[in-house]
Amino acid sequence: MLTSGDCQVILRSEGTQVKYWNTNLKNLSPYIPGEQPKNTDQIIKLNTNENPYPPSPSVVSYLSGLNADNIGLYPDPAWTKLRSVIGERYGLNNEQIFCGNGSDEILSLIFRSFLSPEDEILIPYPNYTLYETLAQSYGIGYHYIQSDDDLIISMDSLFQKDSKAVFFSNPNAPTGCYYDLDKILAFCKEYNGLFILDEAYIDFSEKGSGITKSGLQLLKHLDNLIVLRTFSKSFALAGIRAGYAFASPSLIEGMMRMKDSYNLSLLSQEIAYKAFQDYSYMETNAQKIMSNREFLKGELQKRGFHSTDSKSNFLFVSHPKYHAKTLFQRLKGQGILVRYFDQPRLTEYLRITIGHKDQLDTLLSILTDKILVGD
Amino acid sequence: MLTSGDCQVILRSEGTQVKYWNTNLKNLSPYIPGEQPKNTDQIIKLNTNENPYPPSPSVVSYLSGLNADNIGLYPDPAWTKLRSVIGERYGLNNEQIFCGNGSDEILSLIFRSFLSPEDEILIPYPNYTLYETLAQSYGIGYHYIQSDDDLIISMDSLFQKDSKAVFFSNPNAPTGCYYDLDKILAFCKEYNGLFILDEAYIDFSEKGSGITKSGLQLLKHLDNLIVLRTFSKSFALAGIRAGYAFASPSLIEGMMRMKDSYNLSLLSQEIAYKAFQDYSYMETNAQKIMSNREFLKGELQKRGFHSTDSKSNFLFVSHPKYHAKTLFQRLKGQGILVRYFDQPRLTEYLRITIGHKDQLDTLLSILTDKILVGD
Repeated sequence: MLTSGDCQVILRSEGTQVKYWNTNLKNLSPYIPGEQPKNTDQIIKLNTNENPYPPSPSVVSYLSGLNADNIGLYPDPAWTKLRSVIGERYGLNNEQIFCGNGSDEILSLIFRSFLSPEDEILIPYPNYTLYETLAQSYGIGYHYIQSDDDLIISMDSLFQKDSKAVFFSNPNAPTGCYYDLDKILAFCKEYNGLFILDEAYIDFSEKGSGITKSGLQLLKHLDNLIVLRTFSKSFALAGIRAGYAFASPSLIEGMMRMKDSYNLSLLSQEIAYKAFQDYSYMETNAQKIMSNREFLKGELQKRGFHSTDSKSNFLFVSHPKYHAKTLFQRLKGQGILVRYFDQPRLTEYLRITIGHKDQLDTLLSILTDKILVGD
Repeated sequence: MLTSGDCQVILRSEGTQVKYWNTNLKNLSPYIPGEQPKNTDQIIKLNTNENPYPPSPSVVSYLSGLNADNIGLYPDPAWTKLRSVIGERYGLNNEQIFCGNGSDEILSLIFRSFLSPEDEILIPYPNYTLYETLAQSYGIGYHYIQSDDDLIISMDSLFQKDSKAVFFSNPNAPTGCYYDLDKILAFCKEYNGLFILDEAYIDFSEKGSGITKSGLQLLKHLDNLIVLRTFSKSFALAGIRAGYAFASPSLIEGMMRMKDSYNLSLLSQEIAYKAFQDYSYMETNAQKIMSNREFLKGELQKRGFHSTDSKSNFLFVSHPKYHAKTLFQRLKGQGILVRYFDQPRLTEYLRITIGHKDQLDTLLSILTDKILVGD
């Protein structure tokens, strides 16, 4: 979902031009993704949580040895190879695994398969803004549940209001905060709706296998849980658009019926498969990113920044003396892109993706009193 | 959209298992794509209208020289390069061009952006069955308009019933018949709804540029026309899932707002771009396929088959003496897959994709009296 600017399409002002648009489209506030500059060589891009390391060498060698003739054939509609390698690692059956054209497609299919216009969903605030955009686009009601002053959500507050689904990112986007599984399990056992646990950043939350902190271990207890994952972050494959999800066979089957037959390209399936096979390469990179995150956090704190307890591949920081928007603009002027959210309660924060160590060093070297006070 | 068999998921018989499914999902009859056998080496696959030739050599050399580091970055959400090369060839602006994860995604977005549950759409029969499946999945009413005894639709019959959109494939799937543009233009000028002209097979309808027979030349006269195209057929790229569409800027902008931000992977964008740049390679292959189509048609007629006047990369044939289903099964027993549709008015037809000349020779060599009468 895009703004007019992204599309290089100007919204015509005359009402008549939208005569074929349906009500949902007319009411839609487009989702605004992070800026994707054309010339990435000259800037340090710390604004969209991409991975600074290259994808697995297995991916590189797969692509260089590819027989292009095969791409004339339709891809496997059930992603058999990719599902199997994921299932083997996590101890799940294929019937519990879904693969999509990015986790954005899976989120869209959740709305399309399990929600109806008379339903309302709950979204803890702040959160990934796509949940709201998708609810608007499907004409489904949504209600934000506010977090406390430290931007931490209480699970109990999710019972405030009847709802058909809760969309919950863990670690949270954009704060990076991690919520313990026992609290999520306790909530889901009491809750009658669907709990969508978006684990886009989970591989940055612990050392090692990425399993002990993941909601996937709750699947055996719950039939109302959908766990979302992506290849975009920890596997360094944002370009191929591949996401995956875990849930009970009934939920997975519903999404299988609803999806486009060939929703995931042959190359994306193969590349995701190769990358997942090389799991330890992903883990090693995630380790480096976690270590760089703690380094950057310490350095920013020395400069007076406050930081949430991020368990993701980004930091979410504020400074008691300087406006986030001003800092955002000054950094941009120096060729460093970070993310500024012009949203309620977030205007004093910057989200900074954990880049290469040398990118962080450059950031720190210019984040001196000079840029802080704007002299 | 898949059957249980395709997904290797068995539909649980107990009603309770679908408790989270919405009404549209519960009512959905899944779309059934053509069979995709695992081991393609041992069979001659003439059942899903894939292109028997490899993709452009430009695609092959792009992939072999690819810098895999780039696939860690998100793709261009506005497909700028791909749109530009398409626009240059066809004399259109970027604002008139949309790109999707296969034309299936674009069809889905048309329903999602421009139709509402109170609307009804019309579908000439027979047609691509996905239109019906999508209507069901969005809870939108649909009504089939029957063709005559030769499976030809009269444009006037589309005024029989009030509707918000007409989904029209040209050349038609599965008959392959081509409808003249003047009739389509005359209809659209009178019609108040949207006319979706699905030109998946248009590049096989004429020699040369693929423009004079295409509805894209009607765009300057109409604001209610959407022309759909795909890279799956004439460009031999079914595996990458790339489709494109032409329409007025207002319709394109609506779909831009509704789509997932990064709906088309970086590799699919680049591969489609390289293939489109090498337009003459596509045309040369389309010529070969058209010539093989006419050869096969003549040979089948010698064996007593009737054939529609297909302008596509397939033939739609029947035989006055032998049941299509029997022939389908006998051919399958000989390692040749063609398409049989178990649908009203189509049970006496087979759809045969135009493969390589040697595949067609093999088909003809076993399509003798022996297989026809089943001795």
